[in-house]
Amino acid sequence: MSVADTTSLVIVRDVDSLRQRVALWRRERLRVALVPTMGALHRGHKALMTRGLELADRVVATIFVNPTQFAPAEDFGSYPRKEAADVRLLNEAGVHLLFAPEVATMYPPGFSTQVRVNGLSSILEGAHRPTHFDGVATVVTKLLLQAAPDVALFGEKDYQQLCVIKRLASDLDIEAKIVGVPTVREADGLALSSRNAYLTEEERKIAPALHQAITDAATTIAKGANAEAALKTAKERVLAAGFPEVDYIEARQAETLAPFEGGAGRVLAAARLGRARLIDNVAFG
Amino acid sequence: MSVADTTSLVIVRDVDSLRQRVALWRRERLRVALVPTMGALHRGHKALMTRGLELADRVVATIFVNPTQFAPAEDFGSYPRKEAADVRLLNEAGVHLLFAPEVATMYPPGFSTQVRVNGLSSILEGAHRPTHFDGVATVVTKLLLQAAPDVALFGEKDYQQLCVIKRLASDLDIEAKIVGVPTVREADGLALSSRNAYLTEEERKIAPALHQAITDAATTIAKGANAEAALKTAKERVLAAGFPEVDYIEARQAETLAPFEGGAGRVLAAARLGRARLIDNVAFG
Repeated sequence: MSVADTTSLVIVRDVDSLRQRVALWRRERLRVALVPTMGALHRGHKALMTRGLELADRVVATIFVNPTQFAPAEDFGSYPRKEAADVRLLNEAGVHLLFAPEVATMYPPGFSTQVRVNGLSSILEGAHRPTHFDGVATVVTKLLLQAAPDVALFGEKDYQQLCVIKRLASDLDIEAKIVGVPTVREADGLALSSRNAYLTEEERKIAPALHQAITDAATTIAKGANAEAALKTAKERVLAAGFPEVDYIEARQAETLAPFEGGAGRVLAAARLGRARLIDNVAFG
Repeated sequence: MSVADTTSLVIVRDVDSLRQRVALWRRERLRVALVPTMGALHRGHKALMTRGLELADRVVATIFVNPTQFAPAEDFGSYPRKEAADVRLLNEAGVHLLFAPEVATMYPPGFSTQVRVNGLSSILEGAHRPTHFDGVATVVTKLLLQAAPDVALFGEKDYQQLCVIKRLASDLDIEAKIVGVPTVREADGLALSSRNAYLTEEERKIAPALHQAITDAATTIAKGANAEAALKTAKERVLAAGFPEVDYIEARQAETLAPFEGGAGRVLAAARLGRARLIDNVAFG
């Protein structure tokens, strides 16, 4: 087998084929990493694949635009789908297997089970998207049990999602280790996101203000300044930059996302800009 | 190793020990059956163990009185616990391993994940015990993922529970095959249940009327008679026998528990009698 063959991406669309491939690797005692995505892949996703290759011998990417994590009024229908380009990126990244199921494969008729992480799913993003994390928790539980990886990687860009997934994996005794990978950013600080494609040229110039504002707030809080005042300043700066609306900018404890009470934490933010709703977060302390 | 040694029950109380034992069996390519219970074992449980030994090479029983499937006013505190007698029964049955965790092992601080089977969890038993099946679904998901058996056995006595568990295992891509085992009954038809211990001598004489009434109703419906009339008669007979209250006696489709519309089905019933609440069901068609 040539090098080209060994790095050539295999695509499967049903759970049995996925399990058979992974079972073959298991028999060879190879470690398996899983990288769940919704496709429209960018350098942020590529960083997940690269980290997967560092932590395991084989990397399985999944592409599934999961309908249950979108509310009826959200962008499920228009979410960017471009599998051909995604396959090229996965091949370049050295990913071994792509699992890209249809909706009916994941949710056959009669499907009725829901995984919910109480508490974590109702705050911050969950307060603005009440059913979102139930959809995420359920589909990620399925993907983890379908692929049964040794490790699964998720971007810190969706930091609350990462916390939800760590919690459910621990609570449900799922053996895969959940690993967060640092956010990849544009030169001006904007966090990479498939939804950045929704931004107009003008909005794109405004967008980095969110990251700048929360980075400054995090620095200020880390120095011991009053958190509330720092967060208020951040909100004002984001609005002044041209965002019409800020959903939240809050400081939270790093693991539980409980209200910040000193020590290490995370500033998390969401703000609307045109058709896009940008989210971002930075660590401090 | 003598025969006595190989059939002698091993007891573990933490997940790592459980997994290590099961992993050893896996390496020998032995098939593993799981029989989750709440203890207070009787011949009904023994039938589950026996069936497990027919379907697998090794049987793991679990004893865990799961607090989250009891409502605050229910009998969690007084539910019968008698591990020494249970261990004797498991040894006699030829069970290989008992997993008997503490509550804090199953639900450590911060635990916040819930598995819910929508629809099935809200009807019949679920209408009378609104949080019951969420507790069952969550703990059974955990036990299935902790032990990773080839097959897991549950009594048909708790028929709706069996439907809920089959549904969640299928929906969450849990590989274990879920197998129902026919209800074991006393000579007079009363379904064996740990909660029968709550019955006074007088109530014990009344109790078989529930099974008699639903068996007759099922026979009548199977012959093509009007189901509503047959179920009404059954209710009247149960009340006349001395049950102070009938929660429900209904005919449902066998798999989905959707309203019965002809063909094969199940009559399911629940009725209060003194401190006990008896449930039972019979197939027809």
